Amino acid sequence: MPRDLADMPGQGLDAFFGADGIAIVGASDDITKIGGRPIHLLKKYGYRGPIYPVNPRGGEIQGLTAYPSVRDLPTAPDLAILVVPATATADALRDCAARGVRGAVVLSSGFGEAGPDGQALQDELLGIARDAGMRLLGPNCLGSFSVANGVIGSFSIVLEDSMPKAGNVGIVSQSGNIGSFIVQNVALRGLGVSHFIATGNEADVDVADGIAALARDAQTGVILCCMETCRDGGRLTQALDLARANGKPVIVLKIGETESGQAAAASHTGALAGSDAVIDAVLRRHGALRVRSIEALLEMGHTASILGRDRLPKGKRVTLVAASGGFGIMMADAATKAGLDLPPLSDATKARINEAVPTAGTNNPVDASAQMSSRPDILYKMLSALIEEPDTDATLLFLSLSLYNKRLRGVYLEALARIRESHPDRLLAVISAGPADAVAEINALGIPVFAGIDAAANGLAGLSRLTGPGGDAVRWTGESLPVDPAVFRNENAAKKALAEIGVGILPEATVQSADEAVQAADAMGYPVVLKILSEDIPHKTEAGGVALNLGDGDAVRAAHDRILNSARSHVPGARIDGVLVTPMAGAGTELIMGVSRDPVFGPVVMVGMGGIFAEVLGDVALEPAPVTPAQADAMIRSLKMFPILDGARGRERGDVAAAARTLSALSEFACRHADDVAEIDLNPVLVRAEGQGVVALDALMIPHAKV
Amino acid sequence: MPRDLADMPGQGLDAFFGADGIAIVGASDDITKIGGRPIHLLKKYGYRGPIYPVNPRGGEIQGLTAYPSVRDLPTAPDLAILVVPATATADALRDCAARGVRGAVVLSSGFGEAGPDGQALQDELLGIARDAGMRLLGPNCLGSFSVANGVIGSFSIVLEDSMPKAGNVGIVSQSGNIGSFIVQNVALRGLGVSHFIATGNEADVDVADGIAALARDAQTGVILCCMETCRDGGRLTQALDLARANGKPVIVLKIGETESGQAAAASHTGALAGSDAVIDAVLRRHGALRVRSIEALLEMGHTASILGRDRLPKGKRVTLVAASGGFGIMMADAATKAGLDLPPLSDATKARINEAVPTAGTNNPVDASAQMSSRPDILYKMLSALIEEPDTDATLLFLSLSLYNKRLRGVYLEALARIRESHPDRLLAVISAGPADAVAEINALGIPVFAGIDAAANGLAGLSRLTGPGGDAVRWTGESLPVDPAVFRNENAAKKALAEIGVGILPEATVQSADEAVQAADAMGYPVVLKILSEDIPHKTEAGGVALNLGDGDAVRAAHDRILNSARSHVPGARIDGVLVTPMAGAGTELIMGVSRDPVFGPVVMVGMGGIFAEVLGDVALEPAPVTPAQADAMIRSLKMFPILDGARGRERGDVAAAARTLSALSEFACRHADDVAEIDLNPVLVRAEGQGVVALDALMIPHAKV
Repeated sequence: MPRDLADMPGQGLDAFFGADGIAIVGASDDITKIGGRPIHLLKKYGYRGPIYPVNPRGGEIQGLTAYPSVRDLPTAPDLAILVVPATATADALRDCAARGVRGAVVLSSGFGEAGPDGQALQDELLGIARDAGMRLLGPNCLGSFSVANGVIGSFSIVLEDSMPKAGNVGIVSQSGNIGSFIVQNVALRGLGVSHFIATGNEADVDVADGIAALARDAQTGVILCCMETCRDGGRLTQALDLARANGKPVIVLKIGETESGQAAAASHTGALAGSDAVIDAVLRRHGALRVRSIEALLEMGHTASILGRDRLPKGKRVTLVAASGGFGIMMADAATKAGLDLPPLSDATKARINEAVPTAGTNNPVDASAQMSSRPDILYKMLSALIEEPDTDATLLFLSLSLYNKRLRGVYLEALARIRESHPDRLLAVISAGPADAVAEINALGIPVFAGIDAAANGLAGLSRLTGPGGDAVRWTGESLPVDPAVFRNENAAKKALAEIGVGILPEATVQSADEAVQAADAMGYPVVLKILSEDIPHKTEAGGVALNLGDGDAVRAAHDRILNSARSHVPGARIDGVLVTPMAGAGTELIMGVSRDPVFGPVVMVGMGGIFAEVLGDVALEPAPVTPAQADAMIRSLKMFPILDGARGRERGDVAAAARTLSALSEFACRHADDVAEIDLNPVLVRAEGQGVVALDALMIPHAKV
Repeated sequence: MPRDLADMPGQGLDAFFGADGIAIVGASDDITKIGGRPIHLLKKYGYRGPIYPVNPRGGEIQGLTAYPSVRDLPTAPDLAILVVPATATADALRDCAARGVRGAVVLSSGFGEAGPDGQALQDELLGIARDAGMRLLGPNCLGSFSVANGVIGSFSIVLEDSMPKAGNVGIVSQSGNIGSFIVQNVALRGLGVSHFIATGNEADVDVADGIAALARDAQTGVILCCMETCRDGGRLTQALDLARANGKPVIVLKIGETESGQAAAASHTGALAGSDAVIDAVLRRHGALRVRSIEALLEMGHTASILGRDRLPKGKRVTLVAASGGFGIMMADAATKAGLDLPPLSDATKARINEAVPTAGTNNPVDASAQMSSRPDILYKMLSALIEEPDTDATLLFLSLSLYNKRLRGVYLEALARIRESHPDRLLAVISAGPADAVAEINALGIPVFAGIDAAANGLAGLSRLTGPGGDAVRWTGESLPVDPAVFRNENAAKKALAEIGVGILPEATVQSADEAVQAADAMGYPVVLKILSEDIPHKTEAGGVALNLGDGDAVRAAHDRILNSARSHVPGARIDGVLVTPMAGAGTELIMGVSRDPVFGPVVMVGMGGIFAEVLGDVALEPAPVTPAQADAMIRSLKMFPILDGARGRERGDVAAAARTLSALSEFACRHADDVAEIDLNPVLVRAEGQGVVALDALMIPHAKV
């Protein structure tokens, strides 16, 4: 199976999840050993296909006939589990290929993680698998199992005592330990698992394969993913798009920072684009929900599993209700911090609430008083009013520790069951810290229960992002075109290329002498700016190569000689193309715009406030390129300093629309010339008053060879 | 008991926690009614003193002799619980006063929370209590109880089934419902409670009283507090200082925002000082730990209760250890986000770890591999090495779900018990989500268990703040002196007053004509600035009353007339004191400094980056005044934009020390003249290069009458 970007990820993973016949190469009689455990587990949980222990000694292993080689097996197993030493694995894998095995799990370690020799062994495995059209999971992984189909290719501790309950939660994790931890917690929460896959070194099968396979799987409703690194951005985004198209929420915990994967950046703007921020943007753009802790992964996953795709919150409007004002205040604080909106209730809803509970305060949060839980019908009536309020996406009910009280537990469970039955499509969530059996009963009704106020607020806010408008990820489909190499040579050429795609620039002239400079300035009108032009001096200001605000010919003449001398002394031997003359730009607000190349996700477009604020405050927005003008507009508006462009404190409003068009055009330019251009740095871009456009005052392009 | 600021809070609360004799006024035979419940609870839990039901009908109530009035009681009870209607409460309280009752709990509602009539009734109660030297709890409160002494003055639902276990957690809450919720959760966590007090409307006894009483109480080790509002800043800080002096950690959940309490601010800087931020600063300065959710309150309280004052983390250096690298990465991410430091291990420690666990990775986090839990002695040896590492404040061990495995549970519990015994003073904390009985066993060893990675990281970071250096809250003890009323009149007079306390200002002259302006400018040297001087024009720029960078006499002459005309047309009838002439200030970085008056905590000093950044970014630091130069320095360094003052991107370093001295002097000035000056606004303060000081380029003072 040759792989390229056109390959859809997730193909051929049925060999792991639905294998008909499983060989264990390196099989052992000792059920505590890695070579013995999978056989033991397959037998224990009643795997229905043939189990073939493979061991050169032959004979019987765990009561099953053992074969000296996979080549000797009576039928071709779909799946082979390889637990032989690293150096013996390639031969074993060749045997698998020869016998027609479709998928191989290499549980053994000693490969890429162990250094260059191990990497060579790993590359050999990959070659064998590719040649044979066989999928390879691992090496150095915990393997996979399918609860739904009783297929086990793993020695995970989670299978030691019992098989997890079958259910709709699919789990994919690079780390086997974290994957196992997720399975255990999912089971402890009373949820069921569809399939589990731990990808380890990812020689072949990667997280994208796992996501895509689960996205296509009928038994999977929600996909929980723990990633450490992403090696292939295209495959990941394809998998995420597939999951989204198939209505499967993907919740991702990305652990660690991947600074090492970030290319050293020659330009300032490039240095601001950390790859963690890029992954963040990619996940968001492709409809996955990124969480920041394993607790959040479990809580969001639990809720999504209960709600299914259709009942996830469609927006951020929540109504809050508690039996006491104090709890309402805490809920309102948490909801506001989480970015949820608390719309006021309609008069009709207020009246209905007070009909049920005369003492209730009917602001949002509703202060329902202890009266609400005096009888199930009263609680039902009040909750019905709230849940039918048209302008809301979710209702959140705080239960204090009421479920520990027998009478109140009865009242709540009856009312909640009735609400779930009468309003099957509406979203009601509950906050309760226990007891566990009562929480399980409410969950079983299809009503999610959050353990705490913050968890509930963050959970609803997060889950609402899973249902945002689809299709906002733009994929660049055009081919890469060559760019005129002159753009890498100096500012003037770079700007001309950008002007062709609609980026505003000022008139400018390249001159070779002080006289020419004065002539050009006279023609343009004063004041003017002079800048050194040299591909060896990318940072002109630092080299004394810029003179601003020159008011007359004498000033221009003096500045011309000064900046030439300064540039020559700063960068001896610099190839100098001349001096650029351009008018002073006038008033406006400065942005910086740039493109850098993420080693995994390709061109990334960035915008930040100009001056040193982008750097000091980290006030930048970035997205994988290309972006539409609307997306570029949203990026600009997301800056903390955006109010400065938006007329804060009586300032003139900037031409944000023109800035967004420029950013979008820049992102398309970067995609069109992705093979040539590694980085672009427009610093600054002057945003003039509304309707008056923007101009790029400087431009720097860096070719791939130089990065 | 007359109250003023000199009164130490918490006096006389022994009447609530240790009452000898309790009267219930409005007593009922029905144990489900508020008038019946306290009697029922006192009997049920074996209160040892006399219980006196009071009811005009007399006879017997719940088997006890009932008296028509408190005046008729055979002995004077320390405590009276009042549950009569609001309108009858004053008379009942007078009876209590006459009989020598020392503390009264008014459980009834219908007072301040019900409007002006209720407030009048409440004020009447307070007057009666003050005249009699009696402490009054409530009205409209859930009352109090002491687990240690079996004293109950409450009808809280938490007492329905059983009395909480006695222990070292003291609880004070304005909201009775939240207070009860805290008690229930504390009990569910297996902790014991000393005393509970819910303050309701706080006519007399307030949260500060509760904190101070618990701070003096021998049975209380940690104080959990839920506040909605603070009405008296002086009493709160006294109570917090007392708790700190007595070694009792105070953990505060402040719910809701108190915008209504914020004085409308006439100056820009004042408007930035929200009272929630002030409470934040006050709590920090006085050694209390503010938490942002009830879950954090419970988790921090639990940990503090287990650790006691002496074993709280002394700093932010933690060593992390898990059986798998993936969990280590997650712990490192969470610890870093929480502001903890991860020092590298010493070579000696690394060697000892590898002696115990040869496969362990010895970075921090330690990747200890599953080998660490193979035997208790191996785990003990590895943990000993880590916990003895000298440059750490805490060791954090991740247990995955190992405690669910019987063998591993045995290994962990044995090793942890040995560690606790051999290293009683060191801090080891554990992360485990269960099972509950194993978690309880570890907690019982004196080893705190956090349920999740984020909770552990935030918990350790938070608790380390409780042990920071004491005494950093400066109390202004000088008397308030009058200020020359001229400072309110114009910039010139305000600056002169500030110059006397060491604030740098430029030379300036007040002129009455264009000729005088030119004369003054000639004497100072060009370029100069002209500004209108008028107490009716506090915001000069907006009124066209400022002209900058005037290069010669002609420019000065023109500007003089222009700004006079502009000011007159903007503010017709403005009283104009003249025009100020001052030199242009030259280069530097602009700060804004200001003082505003918090209605509860008094003068608050503020610093932010100049221009519109303070406002757009909310990039300001504030503290209750006064601040020392060192505290002022810390405020300036806490600004997000501080790198701009600190030489970011090749800029010249600013004179931060001088800025700090100025801010400190300003804060002292505000305290010295607190009765006169409501707000001060220095905008901007120009910070020149290191060693060259700062100058206030504008100054505005606003007297109390004007705020």
